[in-house]
Amino acid sequence: MQCFETVEQLRSYLTEARRRQQSIGLVPTMGALHEGHLSLMRTAAAENDIVVASIFVNPTQFGPQEDLATYPRNLEKDARLAAQAGVTALFHPPVEEVYRSGNATWVEVVGSLTESLCGRSRPGHFRGVTTVVSRLFNIVQPDRAYFGQKDVQQVQVLKRMTQDLFFDIQLRVVPIVRENDGLAMSSRNAYLSDTERQAALILSRSLEEAKRIVKDGERDTAAIEAAVTAFIQKEELAVIDYVELVHPDDLMRREQLEAVGLLALAVRIGKTRLIDNTFLEVPACS
Amino acid sequence: MQCFETVEQLRSYLTEARRRQQSIGLVPTMGALHEGHLSLMRTAAAENDIVVASIFVNPTQFGPQEDLATYPRNLEKDARLAAQAGVTALFHPPVEEVYRSGNATWVEVVGSLTESLCGRSRPGHFRGVTTVVSRLFNIVQPDRAYFGQKDVQQVQVLKRMTQDLFFDIQLRVVPIVRENDGLAMSSRNAYLSDTERQAALILSRSLEEAKRIVKDGERDTAAIEAAVTAFIQKEELAVIDYVELVHPDDLMRREQLEAVGLLALAVRIGKTRLIDNTFLEVPACS
Repeated sequence: MQCFETVEQLRSYLTEARRRQQSIGLVPTMGALHEGHLSLMRTAAAENDIVVASIFVNPTQFGPQEDLATYPRNLEKDARLAAQAGVTALFHPPVEEVYRSGNATWVEVVGSLTESLCGRSRPGHFRGVTTVVSRLFNIVQPDRAYFGQKDVQQVQVLKRMTQDLFFDIQLRVVPIVRENDGLAMSSRNAYLSDTERQAALILSRSLEEAKRIVKDGERDTAAIEAAVTAFIQKEELAVIDYVELVHPDDLMRREQLEAVGLLALAVRIGKTRLIDNTFLEVPACS
Repeated sequence: MQCFETVEQLRSYLTEARRRQQSIGLVPTMGALHEGHLSLMRTAAAENDIVVASIFVNPTQFGPQEDLATYPRNLEKDARLAAQAGVTALFHPPVEEVYRSGNATWVEVVGSLTESLCGRSRPGHFRGVTTVVSRLFNIVQPDRAYFGQKDVQQVQVLKRMTQDLFFDIQLRVVPIVRENDGLAMSSRNAYLSDTERQAALILSRSLEEAKRIVKDGERDTAAIEAAVTAFIQKEELAVIDYVELVHPDDLMRREQLEAVGLLALAVRIGKTRLIDNTFLEVPACS
């Protein structure tokens, strides 16, 4: 695996790859790699000749009260894991390489996709995401880019951006990877104490609870959300940011669950904000 | 010359061109082609194997009170002129091809580059320009893109966008083309009556006046602007939008002219808003 800190170096590597007609996969990450990231990398390695993984803690997607300064960083370990997962080029630029002097350009998706769910509690977050991902898309010009279903709203926003701006890139979405006990993998899990780690199981368990309720016939959005909310509130350490059942396409609520809905959660466990989600499907036969 | 209305058709043509290792030049226009556009196209033809010209009256760069509906359109004549100027592919998409259903993504340069000069009197204009040009850049993925110095602020904004977002595209800026009597070529000149056409000469003449003043030793920004303003006001049909002497890099005013400044004008002649500009250079020897 080769490592690059500058756009120029990475580009000359990629120009060579393109000359050899090699396909290029991109896995954008903020580092602190876990099995979720590695699953993206392995998928990318299976589908492309070259896999570029970026490790860049992007300042523009953090709010002023958020955890930019403390976000876990461990480049040496990340590099070892990435190489094992099939990454051929690691791009680890300093902030001033991606946001150069005089930088003033933003890419923004407006409307329900960025105003709902995490958009409400993290204003500006998705503007930071689309701004950095559009830069990475242009730097790497990959054939395919890989994102995790865990960040489902990010996926929907980036799909919209890719389509609207005509990026000639295929977005590939990889399923959530969970610990054995159900906790969705996240770099922020590292913040949790043992007690909090146990309490955090309430997220995935509440999604299972929702599936049971729907299987039992409930179709009313408010009723499903209320049941999930009550379930989570039984955990003393949990403070709900949102529990919402929305349509997967526009991330807006409907009165009734039809065909398939997206149940998305953001819950604070102590100081750590965690997210999780699942699709709720109405059985074809009832 | 081949003509395309859809992104898909144009892309399959361009994929073939790239397979043959042909270089691609892009000339984005809103049609109503004049010698200024044709100069861009001829330059592009001299520097590239393939020249794509787009003709697209972009609704997002017009304000609600502006001339979107009446903007001159003449595709048949434009196509003939473009072919003669060396264009190999004409891209003439309907609005709903560039802004598809569900479109919600904007590209925006913020700060002095878009807030000064035309940014003040045309809020949202440059956001529309960067949004459509980023789409065209991704659709065509040219090696070089051509813009006219007449739209000097647009040039500076697009240079910023290209650099910030790492578009792998060389921006080429082509000098202003003028009528024999000095009037800068513009599609909007078609709006002028004979009397207005004569009055419109005040723009280019005032730029010549400014050059004389600077040659005579004036360096004070306010004094140069005041002299140009007074000169324009002698023309009864002229209503000044702005007269500003700014630094070419950030488009912000300085107290004194040093080395080189950009003198930019927007003036209404009747209902028609015209722009013009020139660089003012301080002589190396005095």
